Amino acid sequence: MKSDRIQLAHGSGGKLSHDLVQEIILPAFANEALSELHDGAKITVQGARLAFTTDSYVVKPLFFPGGDIGKLAVCGTVNDLAMTGALPLYLSAGFIIEEGFLFADLSRIVQSMRAAAEEAGVMIVTGDTKVVEKGAVDGIYLNTAGIGMLMEGTDISPTRVRPGQDILLSGCIGDHGVAVMAGRHNMVLPHTIASDCAPLNGLVKEMLTAVPQIAVLRDPTRGGLATTLNEIAQQAGVGILVEETAIPVRPEVAAVCEMMGFDPLYLANEGKMLIFIDPPYSARLLEIMQGHPYGQEARIIGRVTTAPAGQVGLKTVIGGVRLLDMLVGDQLPRIC
Amino acid sequence: MKSDRIQLAHGSGGKLSHDLVQEIILPAFANEALSELHDGAKITVQGARLAFTTDSYVVKPLFFPGGDIGKLAVCGTVNDLAMTGALPLYLSAGFIIEEGFLFADLSRIVQSMRAAAEEAGVMIVTGDTKVVEKGAVDGIYLNTAGIGMLMEGTDISPTRVRPGQDILLSGCIGDHGVAVMAGRHNMVLPHTIASDCAPLNGLVKEMLTAVPQIAVLRDPTRGGLATTLNEIAQQAGVGILVEETAIPVRPEVAAVCEMMGFDPLYLANEGKMLIFIDPPYSARLLEIMQGHPYGQEARIIGRVTTAPAGQVGLKTVIGGVRLLDMLVGDQLPRIC
Repeated sequence: MKSDRIQLAHGSGGKLSHDLVQEIILPAFANEALSELHDGAKITVQGARLAFTTDSYVVKPLFFPGGDIGKLAVCGTVNDLAMTGALPLYLSAGFIIEEGFLFADLSRIVQSMRAAAEEAGVMIVTGDTKVVEKGAVDGIYLNTAGIGMLMEGTDISPTRVRPGQDILLSGCIGDHGVAVMAGRHNMVLPHTIASDCAPLNGLVKEMLTAVPQIAVLRDPTRGGLATTLNEIAQQAGVGILVEETAIPVRPEVAAVCEMMGFDPLYLANEGKMLIFIDPPYSARLLEIMQGHPYGQEARIIGRVTTAPAGQVGLKTVIGGVRLLDMLVGDQLPRIC
Repeated sequence: MKSDRIQLAHGSGGKLSHDLVQEIILPAFANEALSELHDGAKITVQGARLAFTTDSYVVKPLFFPGGDIGKLAVCGTVNDLAMTGALPLYLSAGFIIEEGFLFADLSRIVQSMRAAAEEAGVMIVTGDTKVVEKGAVDGIYLNTAGIGMLMEGTDISPTRVRPGQDILLSGCIGDHGVAVMAGRHNMVLPHTIASDCAPLNGLVKEMLTAVPQIAVLRDPTRGGLATTLNEIAQQAGVGILVEETAIPVRPEVAAVCEMMGFDPLYLANEGKMLIFIDPPYSARLLEIMQGHPYGQEARIIGRVTTAPAGQVGLKTVIGGVRLLDMLVGDQLPRIC
């Protein structure tokens, strides 16, 4: 670590976040479940195979086109459970609230959590509320942890990634990042730009029921598609090649990115996922995904290669291959 | 609610905290597990009987005599699980860190979490790190959630409280509150004053193994002994009478409270518990508790009465009975 202090980019989900986890967190808490560094840990209690995960939410602003911190806090943790191949069941909710926060805003957030929990079919069963003095927190931060039941016959793990597998993406990228940024800066944008924040567990259940052979599910949140692909390439020790023309980005999102100097490949998504699967199952999986509201634009965006191990290549429109690195720095802090 | 804004006392664990939960949180998330309002929810997954709990930690200062935010974050959640009659197994850890926070302090906190987890015999298996810009959080806040396995043959619930039961307290009260206050104001206090922060699950396991008949276990944290007794009296619909002379307070803690105008009955504890038990089992339970480092000063402090339902009386030194209310307002915010 070059400085002796935490920088904003340590929370980006990119390169510095990984350094922080590798150098400070993992050495202290070393254990098998944690070292997998998945979206959630797989644990067994009294014979029950469970997934367990947590996330804190510090998004700014609290309310943005397509969602708010409450919807995000439920969907984010539900999705992390789903990405381990689990059926999400129970959530906890921790609130850290600034003195002077409006009850009306708290109610709105809580109602939004309720609605998202209902859609996802999970119960919020335990919680905690802390209040800190004015200035000691920026409005409200949430934490949710979640417990899910791992689906029988599934085994989602980067160790199952093999060269030749197809890489599927469930839909357009960059919507959440652009929506939050627009909300933050009070930008007037086309009304079609909204966060994609959604619970993916219903879709994942259909997918895993029909195609339990899925090797990896991962949602490209902080750090975006490029960072998530890099994580998987490194964990699996394989190469990845994706086609720029195959990656769907809404024209209006692309236009805002162009204008603001953002790269949609590094913007957070809150309702999308990547799937790694052996090619014989891809067509069936796409059919299922495209039949579901949260997977209508699903497509194959690339494949797993043997080399270069740990690296992600982007085949560009003009036919060259550009190396896609993990996010370095942070183009947009406090996105979730 | 009289104001349209959150006040500090809404996080006190006292009267306003209860109002907040009853008026905003519970109506939204209503379900059986949550409405028990225990330290943790009891849930069943694939036949496994589990406890699930969460707490956020915003203590100020981060380091205080006898502990720090890391030790607190592990012990607090371990204890909440133990208080449901569960063996704590797995924790999650969520970090919200201010830009510019010292790596050295983060390492110290993480090492402290590791040490507490080792003592408690739990594993930290999943986590999350967010970084927010300078000023958007006061240094660092933690959240831990925990999963435990409910002990066979135990049934810890306020519905099992009956008039005539003994009320036991595991040791001296007020140490944590005074230690944190001293740390906050850089007061020079006797070195014997230190937080009692400790994992109680080892002691609880011994107690429940020998005396599974225990009706209620509860740790008097935020809001202190008086607030916790009120919670139980209200949930169980019974009266409670405790003897002032039987409640142990260290002389040096009593002296600081006297000087600063604090009432030790309302100060937070982080390594103490209350037990409700039928009298025939009290002697055996006390013997076990007094043989354990975290229960050496255990004693009977009162009993459950039929009336007045929902109220707590304190038999004072001079023989009168004073009504003990829940904490109203907050004598010491950000205690955990």
